[in-house]
Amino acid sequence: MLHEATMRLGQIPLPAFFSSILLALTVILILKSGVSEDQVTHVLERVEALGFQAHLSRGTYRTIVGIIGDESQLTPESLSAIPGVSKVIPVLPPYKLASLEAHPEPSVIDVSGVKVGGGHLAMIAGPCSVEDPERMDRIAGLVRAAGANLFRGGAFKPRTSPYAFQGLGEEGLRILRDVGRKHQMPTVTEVTDPRNVELVAEYCDMLQVGARNMQNFVLLTEVGRTQRPVLLKRGMSATITDLLMSAEYVLSQGNPNVVLCERGVKGFDSATRNLFDVAAVPAVKTLSHLPIIVDPSHATGRPDLIPACAMAGLAAGADGVHIEVHDCPEEAKSDGPQALLPGQYAELMHQLRDLAHLLGKSISPLPGVAA
Amino acid sequence: MLHEATMRLGQIPLPAFFSSILLALTVILILKSGVSEDQVTHVLERVEALGFQAHLSRGTYRTIVGIIGDESQLTPESLSAIPGVSKVIPVLPPYKLASLEAHPEPSVIDVSGVKVGGGHLAMIAGPCSVEDPERMDRIAGLVRAAGANLFRGGAFKPRTSPYAFQGLGEEGLRILRDVGRKHQMPTVTEVTDPRNVELVAEYCDMLQVGARNMQNFVLLTEVGRTQRPVLLKRGMSATITDLLMSAEYVLSQGNPNVVLCERGVKGFDSATRNLFDVAAVPAVKTLSHLPIIVDPSHATGRPDLIPACAMAGLAAGADGVHIEVHDCPEEAKSDGPQALLPGQYAELMHQLRDLAHLLGKSISPLPGVAA
Amino acid sequence: MLHEATMRLGQIPLPAFFSSILLALTVILILKSGVSEDQVTHVLERVEALGFQAHLSRGTYRTIVGIIGDESQLTPESLSAIPGVSKVIPVLPPYKLASLEAHPEPSVIDVSGVKVGGGHLAMIAGPCSVEDPERMDRIAGLVRAAGANLFRGGAFKPRTSPYAFQGLGEEGLRILRDVGRKHQMPTVTEVTDPRNVELVAEYCDMLQVGARNMQNFVLLTEVGRTQRPVLLKRGMSATITDLLMSAEYVLSQGNPNVVLCERGVKGFDSATRNLFDVAAVPAVKTLSHLPIIVDPSHATGRPDLIPACAMAGLAAGADGVHIEVHDCPEEAKSDGPQALLPGQYAELMHQLRDLAHLLGKSISPLPGVAA
Amino acid sequence: MLHEATMRLGQIPLPAFFSSILLALTVILILKSGVSEDQVTHVLERVEALGFQAHLSRGTYRTIVGIIGDESQLTPESLSAIPGVSKVIPVLPPYKLASLEAHPEPSVIDVSGVKVGGGHLAMIAGPCSVEDPERMDRIAGLVRAAGANLFRGGAFKPRTSPYAFQGLGEEGLRILRDVGRKHQMPTVTEVTDPRNVELVAEYCDMLQVGARNMQNFVLLTEVGRTQRPVLLKRGMSATITDLLMSAEYVLSQGNPNVVLCERGVKGFDSATRNLFDVAAVPAVKTLSHLPIIVDPSHATGRPDLIPACAMAGLAAGADGVHIEVHDCPEEAKSDGPQALLPGQYAELMHQLRDLAHLLGKSISPLPGVAA
Repeated sequence: MLHEATMRLGQIPLPAFFSSILLALTVILILKSGVSEDQVTHVLERVEALGFQAHLSRGTYRTIVGIIGDESQLTPESLSAIPGVSKVIPVLPPYKLASLEAHPEPSVIDVSGVKVGGGHLAMIAGPCSVEDPERMDRIAGLVRAAGANLFRGGAFKPRTSPYAFQGLGEEGLRILRDVGRKHQMPTVTEVTDPRNVELVAEYCDMLQVGARNMQNFVLLTEVGRTQRPVLLKRGMSATITDLLMSAEYVLSQGNPNVVLCERGVKGFDSATRNLFDVAAVPAVKTLSHLPIIVDPSHATGRPDLIPACAMAGLAAGADGVHIEVHDCPEEAKSDGPQALLPGQYAELMHQLRDLAHLLGKSISPLPGVAA
Repeated sequence: MLHEATMRLGQIPLPAFFSSILLALTVILILKSGVSEDQVTHVLERVEALGFQAHLSRGTYRTIVGIIGDESQLTPESLSAIPGVSKVIPVLPPYKLASLEAHPEPSVIDVSGVKVGGGHLAMIAGPCSVEDPERMDRIAGLVRAAGANLFRGGAFKPRTSPYAFQGLGEEGLRILRDVGRKHQMPTVTEVTDPRNVELVAEYCDMLQVGARNMQNFVLLTEVGRTQRPVLLKRGMSATITDLLMSAEYVLSQGNPNVVLCERGVKGFDSATRNLFDVAAVPAVKTLSHLPIIVDPSHATGRPDLIPACAMAGLAAGADGVHIEVHDCPEEAKSDGPQALLPGQYAELMHQLRDLAHLLGKSISPLPGVAA
Repeated sequence: MLHEATMRLGQIPLPAFFSSILLALTVILILKSGVSEDQVTHVLERVEALGFQAHLSRGTYRTIVGIIGDESQLTPESLSAIPGVSKVIPVLPPYKLASLEAHPEPSVIDVSGVKVGGGHLAMIAGPCSVEDPERMDRIAGLVRAAGANLFRGGAFKPRTSPYAFQGLGEEGLRILRDVGRKHQMPTVTEVTDPRNVELVAEYCDMLQVGARNMQNFVLLTEVGRTQRPVLLKRGMSATITDLLMSAEYVLSQGNPNVVLCERGVKGFDSATRNLFDVAAVPAVKTLSHLPIIVDPSHATGRPDLIPACAMAGLAAGADGVHIEVHDCPEEAKSDGPQALLPGQYAELMHQLRDLAHLLGKSISPLPGVAA
Repeated sequence: MLHEATMRLGQIPLPAFFSSILLALTVILILKSGVSEDQVTHVLERVEALGFQAHLSRGTYRTIVGIIGDESQLTPESLSAIPGVSKVIPVLPPYKLASLEAHPEPSVIDVSGVKVGGGHLAMIAGPCSVEDPERMDRIAGLVRAAGANLFRGGAFKPRTSPYAFQGLGEEGLRILRDVGRKHQMPTVTEVTDPRNVELVAEYCDMLQVGARNMQNFVLLTEVGRTQRPVLLKRGMSATITDLLMSAEYVLSQGNPNVVLCERGVKGFDSATRNLFDVAAVPAVKTLSHLPIIVDPSHATGRPDLIPACAMAGLAAGADGVHIEVHDCPEEAKSDGPQALLPGQYAELMHQLRDLAHLLGKSISPLPGVAA
């Protein structure tokens, strides 16, 4: 024999877009054992004062309160400060625009003609830092020949040491743009300063937000105000929810073009530079429509492990692979040790192409080039 | 206006001891959005087939099921395999005998006359391994003079390398016992093999289960069958719940004499050997009646940080401090680098005694010695 | 202009087997800045007293000491206890028999006719726990038809709760053996108690040492005394070096048949049960000749992520995949939620077989069955 | 018998300030076993081409190269890209101005009259966010009466959700300044945008850089260009070296006024919000002259654990304690659940004052108020 209680929902006015997701139970409060009647009353008053409906279920020893309303107006953890509340359990995810509920089909992001997502693979390659034009031209030619469809290089480098090479700045942007144009490859570069977002967006096709800036909300807001595709790298201690919340920052500013990137999280084993969380790829796909690629260069920090991890990422369902390539790693201005040589990259691309074929996916052709 | 549903509880027969804790809501199931009527019915049937009562709350978009009954008969995670279940939320902790609900006052454990817990501090000191009798005698004399009340030394050593010194075995137990007797100090030693538990229990006053064996359930069961106090060290990747579940193994066998030990968990920064989780001390005290001590020697692996971390542990509410002391660390058979010299230990004990006084606690006197 | 110093090696007698690896610089000591002459002399005396040769390099501000000799006789960390030593840097890995230096070709382990390693893939499948004979027979038939070549099931279960199902014991071993024989599949089961190793080895073809027992050195020693192949799972906070050291325990007892298993390490994101460290697969292959398989069931704890992670593991170079399969996960005695249904397993095996083919590997045929 | 090699140092011109630290062995390279003569020659040429001196030590099986020169000009990891190099071991820390070598005495930072460091304790208290003036005035009065000497409140809030309260902005700065002035308490507030640094510096006495911005090097550079004291919080996955490198960014811009803050790192146990790394306090003191305080509010996220962790931090040697205080946590605009009530704070301050006295330290008096 079952005991039933049907929740009756109030007439809360909601933005049309969210109404189908949000008109629902959003949070469950478990009250402390031994909570007093006055405390229960206070909890219910408090929830209603915040503009939500409360639904009380009273057991012999434990009482729970269901909260109904627009969660985007609610910070669940704040509820745990109400006296008598033992545990706060959010039922809905805190991100909306990034969720599968908001957009059940995989998004396909267009990076100046190169499609990413929905079976289209991004193959991003290039040196860590933008270097001199000749070297950039040479590397671009080699990675393009190997099958890369997006060319990368950093002009503004976030370096842990103030004494390390900080990038060529606007001069680097210019070199990157010119080399990209020559080889018909759209370009990707990192932006680190909210004051530079517009400048970088003029020169480059895709704006990278690096792992250390994943929760730099000021920067996220600025890149969200452009329409440039954003490559958002996962922070080293960011959960998948954190990553999607940072994507939500960009999306909520009106820029829907976000590509996520798993690049390793902090681990305890110094055998690799970071811990490559390959399961994040399929896990994101159960929650979000946004494409997600992998970066085995930063994830491992070891060229000898990059090919295996690139294959693993693709096999796990990634929408692309980001790899640093340099023709003379020992001369690289930064992060040389984690770069592949152009020949190694070409060999890996051969394997990745075969694997993509097996998985029913394909590397997006360059704009203006027949597939 | 509030919606109420009172849970009516069935007449489930329960052991008298647990009845006040267990006759309660134990688990909440959140069903998937879009769950079918058939699936809901199946969930309810399944819960009742397991011998529990189900309580259904149906919202417009989400449905939840409260489960009532004796949680000790339930493995909450198994419920997540029922089709239509999205999330399983345990309400009650999975340990019973170790919980504050079962025993609201702090336990005081008696180690052959030395009290631990409830304001009585254990000061455990001695070398990592039992070494020759002369050295043991010398160190025991020094740590006793400094104020230690339990003497430690390992006869069976769990070493990561099969080529490293593995301990003196029974000969070591004999040395430890004889030296302890001479100095009137109860002894602590590690047990690693379920076949040796009885042997070790004959020689020593307190059985240590090391971090690497915290989830060696066979060993926990054996030490639970003795009445010897157990020093249970937290595993390097064990949550506080895991630690209390391991204590529950010992308690559920009939041995109520468990002292917990925080000794550092796995961290990402090689600056210290482990990450000393000092907040585990007060966190355990909100959940359990068992005493908990700290081990800054293993937590840091650095003698220069031991005094600060010992002070921190005591200030956080620990019921004692475990420190390795050796009179010539460079000659130690194992773990020399994390040992204090006897002089350093004496100086630290001076500070710890002052801090204990400030906190209204005291170092337990040796048996047969006036406080 | 370069400054050279050639090390002259002493005539240290070494076991023939190790001589080519060990007659080398094994450890570097960096002394503290401002170290006194007396301390330097003492360091050198101490190193020589331990039976090693010391090689001093003196800079203006820093002095370093190279140590030459048989590292298997040395616990490097103990050297850091010598006054004046600032840092100890091991040059050689602490494991020998498990290292590529000892055995440069990949090992191929024979599990009663099923080859593992060197291009031969182990596909281990079956329920978490051994259950009733009919169910075991049914599942074995299904996973065998799907292509599994080793059948698993736990008779002795290490459960975090003392109140949870602990396995059927010897009765379970008998069921597993009988079902395996009927289907011509060698069997894998976990051993948790050193007193049971012989018993388990009589019934089963491969002995699993679980993650929680990876540093249960007593158990490792016992399984090392059999000749049964051992499936050694990585502990949740074990580094790759720790894992190889545990393998070394088994190897050093005379049992060369060790298969490693990556099954996820402790992570900070509750999105998955553990953090699947896929990079451990290629990382192990740069260090050791032992095969390594992956277990996406325990690594993720989520059936919806298992296929992607199984593919990732194989793509990264794993020598096999361990997957829990149950025909009715909600009725499973343990860990139901992380099991695949037989149909899902068959579909995944189809993809894994294609991927294996692409990688030039193949699933080992069952003994007595043509490939 | 010992083998000696004395390094002869070249005449490398160095800035006077660094000469005593840097004219030393900075990096050791361990070459691969089996490295060829050509590779060795290339390594040496490469090191010299970078402007360093190389010192070769050749063993029978392993060869090592010591590198001498100004490490601030060297990115050690780049050396690992040179063919034949197996391992790169930095000998000197990568930070200079933050190191004890540069400044052997503890720094004392003056925050508009309140001293921090060298035995002077900062007691920072206030709500998470700046709220309305009446509430701010009330809380300031209460924490001042309890003994706090710096008043905090956030006007620009880095929130994980774009839909959460983002702070009052400049209006908040004005409220904070006015309330601080009225109570004669210098103020602390977070800065998140490099474009706002000047603005915030005009209103407030101490600029906080939050954990999520610890490696926002653009922001660090901007706060380094002011002379305002900086409260630099440790990032959730930052090592102690990372933290000191971020401090180096500020110091290298000419602002010597940095106070570090341990506020918990990412851990695997959800029992606490973060893992309070109390050992970081004494560990920093072995490396740096900068003061370090603790923030148990963010470290634990649980008011019931804050007092124990505040005591632990002070006992471990912290130069102050940062605690969030709110007179009605359930109404707090942000992070209410981790705030203490004013009465709880007063009680804790009583205990902290006694502990400070025991440790020979004292809470810095307010400016213009007799101690």
